[in-house]
Amino acid sequence: MGTIGEAGEFGLIARLTRRLPPSPAVELGPGDDAAVIAAPDGRVVATTDLLVEGRHFRRDWSGPYDIGRKAAAQNLADVVAMGARPTALLVGFAAPAGTALEWAERLYDGLADECREAGASVAGGDVVAAPQITLAVTALGDLGGGEPLTRSGARPGDVVAVRGRLGHASAGLALLAGGRDGPAELIAAHRRPQPPYTAGEEARSLGATSLLDVSDGLVQDLGHIAAASGVRIEIDSSSVPVAEILGPDGLRHVLTGGEDHAFAGTFPPDVRLPSSWRPVGTVAEGTGVHVDGREPPSGGWDHFRV
Amino acid sequence: MGTIGEAGEFGLIARLTRRLPPSPAVELGPGDDAAVIAAPDGRVVATTDLLVEGRHFRRDWSGPYDIGRKAAAQNLADVVAMGARPTALLVGFAAPAGTALEWAERLYDGLADECREAGASVAGGDVVAAPQITLAVTALGDLGGGEPLTRSGARPGDVVAVRGRLGHASAGLALLAGGRDGPAELIAAHRRPQPPYTAGEEARSLGATSLLDVSDGLVQDLGHIAAASGVRIEIDSSSVPVAEILGPDGLRHVLTGGEDHAFAGTFPPDVRLPSSWRPVGTVAEGTGVHVDGREPPSGGWDHFRV
Repeated sequence: MGTIGEAGEFGLIARLTRRLPPSPAVELGPGDDAAVIAAPDGRVVATTDLLVEGRHFRRDWSGPYDIGRKAAAQNLADVVAMGARPTALLVGFAAPAGTALEWAERLYDGLADECREAGASVAGGDVVAAPQITLAVTALGDLGGGEPLTRSGARPGDVVAVRGRLGHASAGLALLAGGRDGPAELIAAHRRPQPPYTAGEEARSLGATSLLDVSDGLVQDLGHIAAASGVRIEIDSSSVPVAEILGPDGLRHVLTGGEDHAFAGTFPPDVRLPSSWRPVGTVAEGTGVHVDGREPPSGGWDHFRV
Repeated sequence: MGTIGEAGEFGLIARLTRRLPPSPAVELGPGDDAAVIAAPDGRVVATTDLLVEGRHFRRDWSGPYDIGRKAAAQNLADVVAMGARPTALLVGFAAPAGTALEWAERLYDGLADECREAGASVAGGDVVAAPQITLAVTALGDLGGGEPLTRSGARPGDVVAVRGRLGHASAGLALLAGGRDGPAELIAAHRRPQPPYTAGEEARSLGATSLLDVSDGLVQDLGHIAAASGVRIEIDSSSVPVAEILGPDGLRHVLTGGEDHAFAGTFPPDVRLPSSWRPVGTVAEGTGVHVDGREPPSGGWDHFRV
C-alpha cells in the first residue's frame, strides 16, 4: 500500500479524510482553511494535547488503531470533565515519510471510532513530515446551556466521588514494562481507555460542584481540585474501588495511576449518587489531599505508597 | 534563568500563562481541563497546524519571539480566510528539557502579541518534553452571523483579487538560505508575516464568493479555489503586484512563494474594490490556474517559472 511520503501531503489527506464519517455538528469538515462546528450554547469548550512517540505511546506496545482511540479519548474526556458534550476533534499528525500509509489509516480509524463513542467526529487537521510521530489533538464541546464544571467549586462538606475504571491502565503499563502480555484486560486498558462519556452530563444533573478527568492519578488530580477550590480532599482508602484483577499493588495503581480517564468530582453533602458513582471521600477545610487522614510521603506522587 | 526541565511541567505552565493577557472572548482560560471561549454566532471556526523545528522554522534563522508570532499568524490567517474574526488560540508546545526557559517565554510573548493584533488571545494548551521543538497551534473564530467564505463559491466572470504582501517571505527565505542577512525588510517578512486581519470582514462586505489565505503560493492556492469551485482561474501577471525590492525573481516569488499569508478571493463581476484589494485576474469556465493564458509547466509548482 506504500508510505505516506509516496502518497504526498494531498494524497495522504484524501486517504485519511475519506475514513472520517460526517456528523451533524460539523457544518464544514476537512478541505478548507478551517472547519465550522456547531456551538449552539454560544460558547465552545476547547482543549489540546500533544502526544509524542516514545513518551506518550510506543508503537511496539500499541497498534495505530489503539493509539488513535487513546489520543482521542484523553481529549474527549477533558471536554466531558467540563460538563460538556464533545462535538469535534482536530488532529495534527506528524510522521516520517517512510511511515506506512496503512498505519496512518488505522490511526485515523481509531480516532474516528473513539469520536463516535463520544458523539463527536474529526472535523479537520494537518499532516506534516517529521522525524518522530507526534499527534496534536484538539477537542471541542458544547455546554448545552449549563455552566462549566471547573476545579474550583468544591466546598467543605461536599462528597468526593469517582466514575469509571481506576488503576487498570497503570497496571497494564506496569505489565508491559515488565515484559508481560497479560492479563489481557489490563493490557487492553492501557492501550485503550474507556472514559464514561456520559459522566459530565450525569455530574451536572447531580449538582456537582467540581469535576475533572483522572489523567495523572486520583491523588494528584484531586490535588488540583483541592488547590483550585482552596480546600482539603480526604480520601477514605477503604471506599476506593480496587478491582481484584489489579493484584497486590491494586490500591497504589488506583491512587497514583493515570490514563484510565475516569472522572472525579465533588457533590453537595445531600447528594444521592447512583451506583455508577462511587463516594471515596469528603471535602474538608485545609489544603492538599489526605489518604486515611495522612499526608502522602514527601517523596512525591510518583513514589507515593500507602 | 534555567531550563524548562528545571521549571517542571507545572512550573513552566505557570511561567507561560502569566505572560498571557486575558481577553473578553475567553470566559475560562488556562488551568482547568479545558478552556471556555465565546462563540456568539452559535458556530465556531477551528483550524490547527503542526510546526516542526527544522521543517517549519529554524532557531538559527528566527528567534523565539518571531517563531511565536509566525506560528500564531498562520493559524489566525486561516480563521480570517473563512470570513471570521479570531477569538482564541490553543498552543501545544513540545521541547527538550534543556530548552532555556527564557526561549519558551519569548515564544509565548510572540504568540500573545500576534493574537492581540488579530483581536484574540491564548486560551490554553499543553506542554510536553520531546526531542524536537514542535508547536501545535489551534485557532478558533466567530463568524458573526455571516456564512463562511469557503473555496467553493467562485463563479465564471468573478474578479480575482488579493490583499496583503506577496512574495516577501519567500524572497527573505531565499536570502537566508543563500547565507545573506538583508535586505532587512525581506528577512523580517520571512520571520514575521503580517496578514491583514481585517481582510475576512472586508471580503465579506465586498460580497466575496470565495476566500483563502496564501500559504503555499498564489498559483497553488488559487488552484484550490479552482478545484473546489469547478472553475478556471486566469491570472494576468501584469496586474500582479510585484514589489521592486523583490528583485529580478520578484514575479516568481509572488506567484509561487508562500508564507506571507496574504488573502486571495473571488468577487462578483461588478465589485468595486477598495485600493487595498488588487485585482489580479478573472474566473473562467474550465479547470486549473492559467497565467497569461498559459498553463504552468508540468514540472510542478515548486519548479514553476514564468
